[in-house]
Amino acid sequence: MNAHTDLNSLPAGFRASAVAAGIKKPGRDDMILIAADVPAAVAGAFTKNRFVAAPVTWCRRVLERRSPVRAVVVNAGNANAGTGAAGLDDARSMAAQVAVGLRCAPLDVLVSSTGVIGRPLPMDRVANGIRTALTGLSGATSLETIARAIMTTDTVPKWSARRSGRATITGVIKGAGMIHPDMATMLCYLLTDAEVSSEELQRILDDAVPTTFNAISVDNDCSTNDSVIIMASGAAGAPDADFADQVADLCRELALKCVADGEGATRVVTISIGGAASREDAKLGADAIATSMLVKTAIHGADPNWGRILAALGRSGAAFDPERVEIRLQGMTVFAHGLPVTIELPMLESAMKQTNIEIALDLAAGAVDWTAYTSDLSEEYVAINADYTS
Amino acid sequence: MNAHTDLNSLPAGFRASAVAAGIKKPGRDDMILIAADVPAAVAGAFTKNRFVAAPVTWCRRVLERRSPVRAVVVNAGNANAGTGAAGLDDARSMAAQVAVGLRCAPLDVLVSSTGVIGRPLPMDRVANGIRTALTGLSGATSLETIARAIMTTDTVPKWSARRSGRATITGVIKGAGMIHPDMATMLCYLLTDAEVSSEELQRILDDAVPTTFNAISVDNDCSTNDSVIIMASGAAGAPDADFADQVADLCRELALKCVADGEGATRVVTISIGGAASREDAKLGADAIATSMLVKTAIHGADPNWGRILAALGRSGAAFDPERVEIRLQGMTVFAHGLPVTIELPMLESAMKQTNIEIALDLAAGAVDWTAYTSDLSEEYVAINADYTS
Repeated sequence: MNAHTDLNSLPAGFRASAVAAGIKKPGRDDMILIAADVPAAVAGAFTKNRFVAAPVTWCRRVLERRSPVRAVVVNAGNANAGTGAAGLDDARSMAAQVAVGLRCAPLDVLVSSTGVIGRPLPMDRVANGIRTALTGLSGATSLETIARAIMTTDTVPKWSARRSGRATITGVIKGAGMIHPDMATMLCYLLTDAEVSSEELQRILDDAVPTTFNAISVDNDCSTNDSVIIMASGAAGAPDADFADQVADLCRELALKCVADGEGATRVVTISIGGAASREDAKLGADAIATSMLVKTAIHGADPNWGRILAALGRSGAAFDPERVEIRLQGMTVFAHGLPVTIELPMLESAMKQTNIEIALDLAAGAVDWTAYTSDLSEEYVAINADYTS
Repeated sequence: MNAHTDLNSLPAGFRASAVAAGIKKPGRDDMILIAADVPAAVAGAFTKNRFVAAPVTWCRRVLERRSPVRAVVVNAGNANAGTGAAGLDDARSMAAQVAVGLRCAPLDVLVSSTGVIGRPLPMDRVANGIRTALTGLSGATSLETIARAIMTTDTVPKWSARRSGRATITGVIKGAGMIHPDMATMLCYLLTDAEVSSEELQRILDDAVPTTFNAISVDNDCSTNDSVIIMASGAAGAPDADFADQVADLCRELALKCVADGEGATRVVTISIGGAASREDAKLGADAIATSMLVKTAIHGADPNWGRILAALGRSGAAFDPERVEIRLQGMTVFAHGLPVTIELPMLESAMKQTNIEIALDLAAGAVDWTAYTSDLSEEYVAINADYTS
């Protein structure tokens, strides 16, 4: 990894502002506007949920044109989902209001929303917010300020950056609950000053998403609003050959930041499946373990209860021979040849108290591997989610 | 429903005993033996987990013979799962020890175990327990005594009964965690004095299981040991025509008792999907909602957050048109025609505080329906499961 968390500013060619529009709590930033000085190449990846929020529908229309864009506007506090034709009108109106300020077309402006589902956007507040955001656009706005403005149940602002030659790639992300493969309630904005075409950006993003954003799970729910957007201003010229790798590496870091900030999470769990007969099998196994409430509570309790891992794998539908599977916890083999392995229990119990937990399984059925990431399940997760809307 | 919860005794032709073998906590009943006076017709349904516990493997062998059986012996406190060939030897040995006492063949004796995975059974204690159980066999042993002896994290003993003509059907069940479609960590013993063949019993059980035991979910985990066994002594002669219905009804009541006693559960949630294009679609939708941690925590908080129901349905893979779906909570329509429905929020919020929660969805895509049952997700569930083995 080659993280530049010290790098807390926008790439060349972008300006941004964060404003308190009063959509969430009064006085807290809850809208951001990111604008490119000149039309920027763009690519995106969105939720696979059949209920698609209005802003995602709008973004898909923008990207269908295969033209550069000028801006993305985001609000927290309201998802503009389950809001029908009126919701789409509101998303279009947000784009149009930004477009007037930037002297571009509404379809040059991407829109995201995050928050509660099924409530109409307070469009008067949104309009005020957009007006303020337009006047406040600045190249000096920090990534942290942007990341903080899109937080919902997130406890920390999450951003990072990479370099590829003279180019910079920055990312801000929000997401702490409703996180699951298929990019659940996660908004991520990647900006780069590299000169890369929209087609190339899309290819790079499509390569990066499955093993990063789509490999994390906090609570195996998947939202109606998830969006990852990458914009390239081109101001720094062509990037180095490692550009795609740097983007993927940044995506992985940001995805893991979401897991670490998972609602109530105290640990980050890496689940590596090796020796699978197919990617499908490896994903089935990893996903069953990553989403098992019993596994996640055991990890919360620092309990080396590998029986729950075995049971989750067994019901996953993945193909394997139970007599040949090997399970390792924190590097220690606990199950092999269909039998428990005698281990130094105090050593394992102590290893389970670490913040990073490694569960590794060898299915001994082939040569395909897959890695998934999850968090533990705590009482705090329940407390956070038992009373969110009302 | 036609419950006979007052009926707390064994059907004619059966004797049972419950003993404290010291496998779990000292002094607490943790083994049961149920014996038929004459060979009894038998049928069973078992876990679909690829890791199958030794006693389940043994039971499958017993049932493969398609012969009547004499007894079932059960221990709590240790699952005898993930224990390899030695575990199967232990299961066989339990059957053989009972067989000596009952003067039958080992393959006339079914075996179940429940508890922690991956530890060898303490066979000396098990042997003592079986000896004591054999001497204590009595027709006067109550269903409650039997149900209590097989509890693990269950908080109440669970049993019930039905009548069909002169015949009685009784059931005892245990299961509060690791419960999910595919009959997770659930042991259920149905006894009847009706005269019914093993083939007929198997057909009746196979009909009843999908919509009862396999339609409940507490934590979407599925154990290595799940077993439902039905034995018929024939002592009361042929049952009435409603026998199969009574068995199915008893199975549903017992399954719902498990949901109500779900670890940390405070509510029972019924999820009815109507208007699906196929049973597969209806099950996908119901299952996604029943297992959504966000839906289950919202229900725990009595929060009418139907957006989470919509999001879970949307990611379920079920086919439907989002503009035509209708969602009802406690009988009140909250979402229709792609839009939220204006409701009396205080009335709905008050209705969400009830113990029984009804979520009903009309997919408007066909004529197939399906009902699933789940519990809410509480802080207590996490507390119970964060520290179970060690």
